[in-house]
Amino acid sequence: MSASEAERLARVALAMAFEPADPDLARDVAARGAVSVREDLLRTGSRDGNRKDAVARLAAVDPARDLERAQTNGLRFVVPGDDEWPTQLDDLEHAPEIVEGRGGVPLGLWVRGPVTLDSLDDSVAVVGSRSATDYGTSVTREMCGVLAKSRWAVVSGAAFGVDQAAHRGAVAAGGPTVAVLACGADRIYPAAHERLLEHLAEHGAVVSEAPPGASPMKLRFLARNRIIAALTRGTVVVEAAPRSGALNTAGWADGVSRQVMGVPGPVTALTSAGVHLLIRRGATLVSSGAEVLEAVGAAGDHLTVDVRGPERPRDHLSVRQLQVLDALPVGRPSGLDSIARIAGMEAAETARHLADLTRNGFAEKAGAGWRITAFART
Amino acid sequence: MSASEAERLARVALAMAFEPADPDLARDVAARGAVSVREDLLRTGSRDGNRKDAVARLAAVDPARDLERAQTNGLRFVVPGDDEWPTQLDDLEHAPEIVEGRGGVPLGLWVRGPVTLDSLDDSVAVVGSRSATDYGTSVTREMCGVLAKSRWAVVSGAAFGVDQAAHRGAVAAGGPTVAVLACGADRIYPAAHERLLEHLAEHGAVVSEAPPGASPMKLRFLARNRIIAALTRGTVVVEAAPRSGALNTAGWADGVSRQVMGVPGPVTALTSAGVHLLIRRGATLVSSGAEVLEAVGAAGDHLTVDVRGPERPRDHLSVRQLQVLDALPVGRPSGLDSIARIAGMEAAETARHLADLTRNGFAEKAGAGWRITAFART
Repeated sequence: MSASEAERLARVALAMAFEPADPDLARDVAARGAVSVREDLLRTGSRDGNRKDAVARLAAVDPARDLERAQTNGLRFVVPGDDEWPTQLDDLEHAPEIVEGRGGVPLGLWVRGPVTLDSLDDSVAVVGSRSATDYGTSVTREMCGVLAKSRWAVVSGAAFGVDQAAHRGAVAAGGPTVAVLACGADRIYPAAHERLLEHLAEHGAVVSEAPPGASPMKLRFLARNRIIAALTRGTVVVEAAPRSGALNTAGWADGVSRQVMGVPGPVTALTSAGVHLLIRRGATLVSSGAEVLEAVGAAGDHLTVDVRGPERPRDHLSVRQLQVLDALPVGRPSGLDSIARIAGMEAAETARHLADLTRNGFAEKAGAGWRITAFART
Repeated sequence: MSASEAERLARVALAMAFEPADPDLARDVAARGAVSVREDLLRTGSRDGNRKDAVARLAAVDPARDLERAQTNGLRFVVPGDDEWPTQLDDLEHAPEIVEGRGGVPLGLWVRGPVTLDSLDDSVAVVGSRSATDYGTSVTREMCGVLAKSRWAVVSGAAFGVDQAAHRGAVAAGGPTVAVLACGADRIYPAAHERLLEHLAEHGAVVSEAPPGASPMKLRFLARNRIIAALTRGTVVVEAAPRSGALNTAGWADGVSRQVMGVPGPVTALTSAGVHLLIRRGATLVSSGAEVLEAVGAAGDHLTVDVRGPERPRDHLSVRQLQVLDALPVGRPSGLDSIARIAGMEAAETARHLADLTRNGFAEKAGAGWRITAFART
């Protein structure tokens, strides 16, 4: 199924003329359809000065030509009604405005690459500081490798630091990964990530609601973050200073009721202070890819077992044997009565367990008493 | 006020004869008083083999002599009914048994040192791994210094690693600190902490429910942990492997409805894995002494402000100015119309803010357009 061509072209026209993430426009289009909104705007103009500029641009746009040119450059324009439309983005219609005056369901998304947006039901956003530490980037790569191996798509913003590590971790594990940009999906930003973005355009997807050629501006980054948050089942923040843009993405994720997760770090690192703040406010602490999968509700074999540390010899003892073992002294040996007393057990039973423990190397007899062995303490 | 001498002596006798933390005995004593429990035990003995041993010891105990000897060694025996009794320990009466077969309100506490137990209303337990990293010990010292400066007592277990750093941090800041031991309060364990324990006995307090001379055994450590947890308003765990005894203390703290707090660390460190587990299960993440004070409900000036990172020049701009600033490109300058469009503002107002921003060094004019300055991005 796909949207009508008239609707698609009207959305192209509006997306070319208006700054992305205009919540009033989005609501209007959702209610009446783009064709009718475009016609009304062209007929009546708008009283509001800003809208008047946009309406002037709208009159000049030739959407069929713009769409064709974009398609020639390998871009498609995915709109609601298309099979490829990721319907989870519709949640943005009722999301609170995390950034004042920005929000709403995008009019459409420009996409470059073979991964289709409707395949992103099982996806996680992994975002964080541009000035990540080695700790942050290595944890990110590892975590995204685990997600990728479970065939969960990794969505991020292609920025330096954590974003880059997220895409690379997924790529290295052979999993799908998608970059959502603040500039046009045909642009390379940051310039140093040309190879990464070209790789994603060939094997994953590069996505933007800003029209082809659009420049990256701060407000577009903040609006872009809502798409990363809403596309995915949850957002993981790895390293973020208290004002990091990644916290803005977490805010959007919370606004559309997605899982918000944070990877902790040393409390002495400013790069982790924003994440700790997030966890203090209710985000889920995650320390591994498996814990991320558990949090977003991945079925079955991703369920984590609690970290238990390496298995120890004593794990094979019975509760009663352990009770005796725990009553043994480290240095100067104790007599049977003292051990029985501490273990809270009758002397006869205590003696039986002591014999077993001695045979198995957990206890040793010394003089008239027993003590714990070094082996038992490993 | 103080307990009757008969009651105190009966409690001494029971504490000498029975292994500490016997929950049935504690309940019995709470219900009928130690005098009556002791008399009944001596008269009827007990059917249970273990109790029979204890009753035999009970018959041999001379509590007046034991108490006098302890007092000669600088120990006092604090029991319910004494002014010094820390009534918060009574919460242990209804606490779940975190360690099977151990629990209950202590019969009394042997105390060495000038800090009185009834002064520990404002106290926090700080515990953690014996094999702490430099990160763990330095965060602990810093945190306990902050607590001590706010006149909150630091309670810990005098073990290696985090415990030691907790006591030392409090001592260095001139604040009260109390060690609760698993062995007798007159013993030095671990031996390497002789100076620390002597310092605490002179300036703080060394406490134990185990009788003078008692040896440290694992079960006594686990039972001791409930006293650390119940004495204080909350337990902070700094570094703990998944099986660390510190998690047992946190379990007791939760059982008596105290705050449970954890200091996160790198997810790559096994020494922090237990803490992360705790936070995932609902413990509060704390990254500073101020956050600990906030969590335990310290009044007034300890309330933390959210970490915000260093102040930036842009913090002094108005919302409308920021809107224009955020619409400025980094490299190639944009014209007025483009900036106004992105800012979502009329051209006239945009031009006014651009003039201000240029004058204040946030924007610069280049050809027919404007761009953001390096200063504005700091």
